[in-house]
Amino acid sequence: MARIRRVLLAVATLFAPALAQQSTQVLLSSDRNINMPQWQSDWRKLTPDAPTAWSIRKYVLHGGKQEGVDVILLDNGKLIISICPTRGMGILWAKLGDVRLGWDSPIKEIVHPRNMNLQMRGGLGWLEGFNELVVRCGLENTGQPGTDKFINNLGDEAAMELTVHGKIANIPASEVEVIVEKQPPYRLRVRGRVDERMFFGPKLELWTEVSTEVGSDTLRISDTLTNRGASEQEFQILYHCNFGRPMLEEGSTFLAAVERIVPFNANAAKGITSYDQYAGPKAGFIEQVYWMYPLADSDGKSMAMLQNKAKDRAVSITFSPKELPYLTLWKNTTAEEEGYVTGIEPGSGFTANRRVERKAGRVPKLAGGATRQFTLDFGIHVGSEAVRRAAARVREIQGSRKPLLEESPPKMQ
Amino acid sequence: MARIRRVLLAVATLFAPALAQQSTQVLLSSDRNINMPQWQSDWRKLTPDAPTAWSIRKYVLHGGKQEGVDVILLDNGKLIISICPTRGMGILWAKLGDVRLGWDSPIKEIVHPRNMNLQMRGGLGWLEGFNELVVRCGLENTGQPGTDKFINNLGDEAAMELTVHGKIANIPASEVEVIVEKQPPYRLRVRGRVDERMFFGPKLELWTEVSTEVGSDTLRISDTLTNRGASEQEFQILYHCNFGRPMLEEGSTFLAAVERIVPFNANAAKGITSYDQYAGPKAGFIEQVYWMYPLADSDGKSMAMLQNKAKDRAVSITFSPKELPYLTLWKNTTAEEEGYVTGIEPGSGFTANRRVERKAGRVPKLAGGATRQFTLDFGIHVGSEAVRRAAARVREIQGSRKPLLEESPPKMQ
Amino acid sequence: MARIRRVLLAVATLFAPALAQQSTQVLLSSDRNINMPQWQSDWRKLTPDAPTAWSIRKYVLHGGKQEGVDVILLDNGKLIISICPTRGMGILWAKLGDVRLGWDSPIKEIVHPRNMNLQMRGGLGWLEGFNELVVRCGLENTGQPGTDKFINNLGDEAAMELTVHGKIANIPASEVEVIVEKQPPYRLRVRGRVDERMFFGPKLELWTEVSTEVGSDTLRISDTLTNRGASEQEFQILYHCNFGRPMLEEGSTFLAAVERIVPFNANAAKGITSYDQYAGPKAGFIEQVYWMYPLADSDGKSMAMLQNKAKDRAVSITFSPKELPYLTLWKNTTAEEEGYVTGIEPGSGFTANRRVERKAGRVPKLAGGATRQFTLDFGIHVGSEAVRRAAARVREIQGSRKPLLEESPPKMQ
Repeated sequence: MARIRRVLLAVATLFAPALAQQSTQVLLSSDRNINMPQWQSDWRKLTPDAPTAWSIRKYVLHGGKQEGVDVILLDNGKLIISICPTRGMGILWAKLGDVRLGWDSPIKEIVHPRNMNLQMRGGLGWLEGFNELVVRCGLENTGQPGTDKFINNLGDEAAMELTVHGKIANIPASEVEVIVEKQPPYRLRVRGRVDERMFFGPKLELWTEVSTEVGSDTLRISDTLTNRGASEQEFQILYHCNFGRPMLEEGSTFLAAVERIVPFNANAAKGITSYDQYAGPKAGFIEQVYWMYPLADSDGKSMAMLQNKAKDRAVSITFSPKELPYLTLWKNTTAEEEGYVTGIEPGSGFTANRRVERKAGRVPKLAGGATRQFTLDFGIHVGSEAVRRAAARVREIQGSRKPLLEESPPKMQ
Repeated sequence: MARIRRVLLAVATLFAPALAQQSTQVLLSSDRNINMPQWQSDWRKLTPDAPTAWSIRKYVLHGGKQEGVDVILLDNGKLIISICPTRGMGILWAKLGDVRLGWDSPIKEIVHPRNMNLQMRGGLGWLEGFNELVVRCGLENTGQPGTDKFINNLGDEAAMELTVHGKIANIPASEVEVIVEKQPPYRLRVRGRVDERMFFGPKLELWTEVSTEVGSDTLRISDTLTNRGASEQEFQILYHCNFGRPMLEEGSTFLAAVERIVPFNANAAKGITSYDQYAGPKAGFIEQVYWMYPLADSDGKSMAMLQNKAKDRAVSITFSPKELPYLTLWKNTTAEEEGYVTGIEPGSGFTANRRVERKAGRVPKLAGGATRQFTLDFGIHVGSEAVRRAAARVREIQGSRKPLLEESPPKMQ
Repeated sequence: MARIRRVLLAVATLFAPALAQQSTQVLLSSDRNINMPQWQSDWRKLTPDAPTAWSIRKYVLHGGKQEGVDVILLDNGKLIISICPTRGMGILWAKLGDVRLGWDSPIKEIVHPRNMNLQMRGGLGWLEGFNELVVRCGLENTGQPGTDKFINNLGDEAAMELTVHGKIANIPASEVEVIVEKQPPYRLRVRGRVDERMFFGPKLELWTEVSTEVGSDTLRISDTLTNRGASEQEFQILYHCNFGRPMLEEGSTFLAAVERIVPFNANAAKGITSYDQYAGPKAGFIEQVYWMYPLADSDGKSMAMLQNKAKDRAVSITFSPKELPYLTLWKNTTAEEEGYVTGIEPGSGFTANRRVERKAGRVPKLAGGATRQFTLDFGIHVGSEAVRRAAARVREIQGSRKPLLEESPPKMQ
């Protein structure tokens, strides 16, 4: 049946005007005053020749703190990805067969930023909305809350209280569009622009993109950061990628190509020798954070991965240390109810307060009008053989360079 | 006419399938992504046999800071109760004939929490939305603003600025349902779940319920608090019940069964001998707060009441000191324009900052998964005889135990 | 055609009941629970006799931080004015032929107050939404952020952190109405009530009005401030009127009738001799602020104006120093991308923190129930002759009184 339809369509196409290479649909735009609360498209309409039945759907959440939140479900026919324009284009979760990427946060709703106050609880307000698979941290700061300086409207140095992980995850997207490539491999793109703009402050613009090819088991983040100001501007960005069950369990292991591993604090130092091993959930567990310096292969790519105990399910993240030179590992194997989770976090820096990061030379600057790219490829590996191959890839990047395990946390000022 | 209809319906019922015991309607649900902006039901549809024509209606407010706020009007045929899911299921007002429970706050709109910033004005931001008949305070703190400690993500003690009366009144309900009992006494229930959840923080869930029986002059609050975290969790809860005219006027009196009465500060100490007497409105009046230790009868019930000057109108609150062991009386007989009001406030503690309350042993803890119940019964007493009976009930609980009036405020640290 | 229709209508009017003098349309009301997201009217419906085709339209913005923001376009047939009820009835921009009043802020969206947090960045959060032609500052404070005292609920002096320029621009209007006068000169009024109310705090009510006559090149702001509290209340108000291109360019000049000009700080002092001259955009330029004491003519009117280099385009603001005794000039000729703009700001005080303003005797009080009026007339002057006439008017007010240029900033405590 499907075959006959495809043949008929192919014939019809001969007589039809040439199809555009790609189809673009704007779902939300503050420039053009557009908001389509509901929208849906699929292979039938746009790529009848595609071998797999994909679909993309936008809808709105209701109830409590999630009233009015937009969600886009991107289903490539095999892998489903849930994206949240209202929360800075974060990725809520992804699913491929029995493999769920994501975690069970104690935050159950997808919290609308207008219900957030980042300054609550000593600058930890961000934690009232934290439940994404991938949440971007930044763009002014990515780390711990606390006082830092800035230059105010009078040209004077003034003090501000940075809030944990910055603002970008709690800024609703200003532009959202879906782009469907109409030729193989039929890449499906969900793009959104998130602005972190302030008068007498940063004018940073982040065009985010989550894409996947029809029928594939991978997804890609391709972000472009632009300084729309006239002057040089500090920035920080960190991709906080979070995994719970089934990928995380007692006996799961972490694997990455790294040069050096540094415990963030005394508590992490205690666990340094088993930094890559995961325990089961335990109430009262205090987070352990490791800072790593990733290694790249000759193509400039590094890779980190998390594999389950049986080593027959794994997720990998491939990124470029040139773009994101630092890698933070966050182990939070607390009770299920409190959020049993681990974070793999490639970033422009580590997760200390910006004041500390700046002193350590880990706060990059962007000239007026300048642009940076960040690309992360996520792979889902199902079956022992696939997991083995992915692990081999990490070891290949590592090569003969043995990772240096530091025993003490760095001195921070 | 009504009788004939009832007979006909009773006959019809013989041939109809057995009616369910109760009817449940979900009006809002973040779990199921439901929000019914408008909804209405009444006795005709659900309890045609009921002796009184009740109705329940949900609608949405517009304009200014109340844009998008949900209100539920619960009319038992005699008593009308206005409930606000968007403001933590607070009770805005109740009305029975010429008796209005509630007050005239200088805050005229029902402020949507997304327009609130609790941290403004030194932690007094809560006061920008305060105009309810019953507003729940808590769940992390119920008292004065100010610094307190907490354990942060690193397992370290850190400082946070508590905001006055906590967050719960400014959290929109995540689940709202109406339950109608289809047999006498036809209890009508409006239930809502309000979550105070934070990663690296409390996971407190409050199922609230306001109910009344068809044709009655009473309403009941039955709340269930659950710690959804794995670890022990401090909590505070206080029912801030506020009354203005016609119940409050010059010559109104307060009556409660109490063991001891303590003035909160020097200003309250000045008025200790007339703590139970109310003056008329006076611009510039500074609030007087009294802390009381309520007494219970053999059934564990205590009672407090406010009666008008003529003692022919009164409102009473019956509660259990086992659930709510402390009672705060707030006298704020300032000018009408500023908010002429008194608060009767049964709570898990008094209204000092949590730091003070903790030292005084008044901050209870809830084990992981554990639950607490809180029940308050409000009675509206119309006519001298009814008021006399209610006052006699308070005196019966008091018995021969004479309340101890302390002259000085407690030492607080 | 239009003439015939008018004649027919005039005839019809003979037989119709007498027309009301004016037509009032309520667009939004929290008192009456009204919100008309879309609305439109024009001369055809209401003033068919008017010589010019005017229209008024209300619509809603979408996308990013402007989702749900109301805008009213008031087109008098010649001059178009964009008003934002959601942002405290601010004026976004005005346009008359090739003259645009307004500026290109780096803030591109019309930010909904519910997305704002005024306390961010050391109390500079207001800057995340700043892009209006006219933004009202106040009502509790109009100046720099920083600590000031207030009297709290206990009657005690307490500390609060004031946020820059106050709250009023980020409070959505509670009442919005359009009034059309049906006789010449057919004044069109857009009125809105913005409340700054707090329990244990100010009860200030501001009825704003923006109006214009059909076919004219002027617009008027007529605001009425009322203290709805019972007690005396401090207030501050400042009209932050902001101009970019084409009025502002290298070679533009500022002109005002003033007694004295004081540089706000050392940086402004450096430029005091050219305080009335504008440079072109320059990245890294630090704002220069001048405080001025305006002079009035025998009718009590003062006037300030900004004229372009060619002196063939100008904007003037006429105001009464009895109502607004202080005038602040803000020069911010930074790069275009950062916000090339100048502000002309008549106010109840200058722009220092309220603590400083109070000490200097520049924080007025309003008795309980008392009212103040503020009127500002904006003129747009097109053509050399019109600009010359406007400048002559300023010089006429100045008369022989030579402005005193101070070389040093005032001592502030």
